[in-house]
Amino acid sequence: MKVLVYAGALTQEHKQKINDTAASVNAQVVYVDSVEEITEEHLDAEAVYGFGFNIMSAEKLRESKNLKWLSVTSAGVDFLMKPGLFANEDLIITNSAGAYGVSIAEHIIAVSLMMMRKLTYHYASSIEGEWAPPVMQRSLKDSRITVWGTGDIGNSFAKRAKAFEPACIIGVSRSGIRKDPVYDSVVTSAEIDGILPKTDLLVMSLPGTAETNGILSRERLNLLPQGAYIVNVGRGNAIDEEALADALEVGRIGGAALDVFQTEPLPKDSRLWKTKNLLITPHVAGNLTLPYTVDKNVEMFCENLVAYANGQPLKHVVDKAVGY
Amino acid sequence: MKVLVYAGALTQEHKQKINDTAASVNAQVVYVDSVEEITEEHLDAEAVYGFGFNIMSAEKLRESKNLKWLSVTSAGVDFLMKPGLFANEDLIITNSAGAYGVSIAEHIIAVSLMMMRKLTYHYASSIEGEWAPPVMQRSLKDSRITVWGTGDIGNSFAKRAKAFEPACIIGVSRSGIRKDPVYDSVVTSAEIDGILPKTDLLVMSLPGTAETNGILSRERLNLLPQGAYIVNVGRGNAIDEEALADALEVGRIGGAALDVFQTEPLPKDSRLWKTKNLLITPHVAGNLTLPYTVDKNVEMFCENLVAYANGQPLKHVVDKAVGY
Repeated sequence: MKVLVYAGALTQEHKQKINDTAASVNAQVVYVDSVEEITEEHLDAEAVYGFGFNIMSAEKLRESKNLKWLSVTSAGVDFLMKPGLFANEDLIITNSAGAYGVSIAEHIIAVSLMMMRKLTYHYASSIEGEWAPPVMQRSLKDSRITVWGTGDIGNSFAKRAKAFEPACIIGVSRSGIRKDPVYDSVVTSAEIDGILPKTDLLVMSLPGTAETNGILSRERLNLLPQGAYIVNVGRGNAIDEEALADALEVGRIGGAALDVFQTEPLPKDSRLWKTKNLLITPHVAGNLTLPYTVDKNVEMFCENLVAYANGQPLKHVVDKAVGY
Repeated sequence: MKVLVYAGALTQEHKQKINDTAASVNAQVVYVDSVEEITEEHLDAEAVYGFGFNIMSAEKLRESKNLKWLSVTSAGVDFLMKPGLFANEDLIITNSAGAYGVSIAEHIIAVSLMMMRKLTYHYASSIEGEWAPPVMQRSLKDSRITVWGTGDIGNSFAKRAKAFEPACIIGVSRSGIRKDPVYDSVVTSAEIDGILPKTDLLVMSLPGTAETNGILSRERLNLLPQGAYIVNVGRGNAIDEEALADALEVGRIGGAALDVFQTEPLPKDSRLWKTKNLLITPHVAGNLTLPYTVDKNVEMFCENLVAYANGQPLKHVVDKAVGY
């Protein structure tokens, strides 16, 4: 079998690991550095690893009837959930959920503390060469934390947040089943309206699906206590951005840190750039800029490559019915 | 006995707690809101709580021969270690070491992640309305952390840092005795030169004493690995600021976050304001802007007030011989 690998973020060590794994199961690896390099000769690849968003412009590849397994480097696969995107409709898609927990958990802790401790204000003052007067701070200690989306990202965050001695950490998931002991309790998404009024810090790491569209609506934003904080690291579709901007402007919400948006990159003329107490990061919480994330990503792919070659079930298979 | 309390950061609840405690030991409490309010009638106070830095301008009070116990709200007491500062040389000074661990630990985690994850770059870009391209990040995971100063602040940080799965957390203290199990090991200050080359993140929370003056010298900065990070939340005297600025400018040190400086406020014309990869905060890691810190501070004072009235030993007594 031929495996096409997009080498973008890979080091020589990563390639060596992939080569060794492929050799152990008699697979042939072909590397390309960009989608532009893809030609007819790549269309007999049975598996492809690493394209993520770039697959959208790899039209040739999408026309391949030989393609049976697409292993994407991202955790979210919403952009692949359009019917008719691939010639082979039975294509198995695996994602890299599990590779991003560490990076995104660190991001969530960082931006939460930046907001609570007014570090954006102090940093902005320091850029101007000003020794700013102290302002009131808040703390993760004794905060009531709600983690909406209890996958690898939510769980990795919750484990770290626990060390800060919060009042509680409540998980919210589709099933409401507590799979990780780090949560004080886990409720279903249907119960969210009862949880929001008891939330000081709301962390959202939901996949982008029809079900999550606008799930943090204007009405739900109003259920949060005065001065609550929001962090979104899942997908931008989940939040009513206009309602959030309104709530931030009037001080109803204490602060929000968004790494994902309805439209990315965030348009130049978006009001969000100037919204008060809104911390914008350009979708960098979990990309491939942290070496650990790439290591883990490659490790997960290699494990699946062995399973695939041996006809065993793959891990992290996307359920196309739910979209993640 | 009369107790003079500086009410600056106190809420009505704090005053109530102090009043109740004082009543239980037949002490009389007098509140002042500023040092300017201090008059002759306050000079018979036996104990004073809360002045911190402000005591320096409370000259009348310092002339009081009745003053036997000064309970300061700060952890550092370097500014009180001048001989002849008080009329009563036998004055007992207690500090509030133990009240700041939570706040300062959160600060250290926040600024470490801001540097490692390039969040200052992203925040500065967002102020300009720019969706900045991703840059390489680093992580607390697998980092070798050295905590120089293993008091309440260092320990509170280490407990939180542990949840981020670092490679190791090494404590450095005067005694070298491991009093807290969170450290992989604790070495003496004399062994620091062997530890620095194995340090990715150096956290300094040392008291300001003659012994700590310039302790992170130009030579020691050179012992750190290429790209290491430094956080200082102790006292500004500990670091050779010129040497640090030089190391940051040439990229030898990956980043530094200073909350304390040789001179505070940092002078307008200091080169540090413009030093590359230097994150400046205006001594806000541990002041009284976090409600939890004030709660804890008042709680510690009340505990000592009961002990004092009952002739029992006080906690957090400053050892004037070592200066903390």
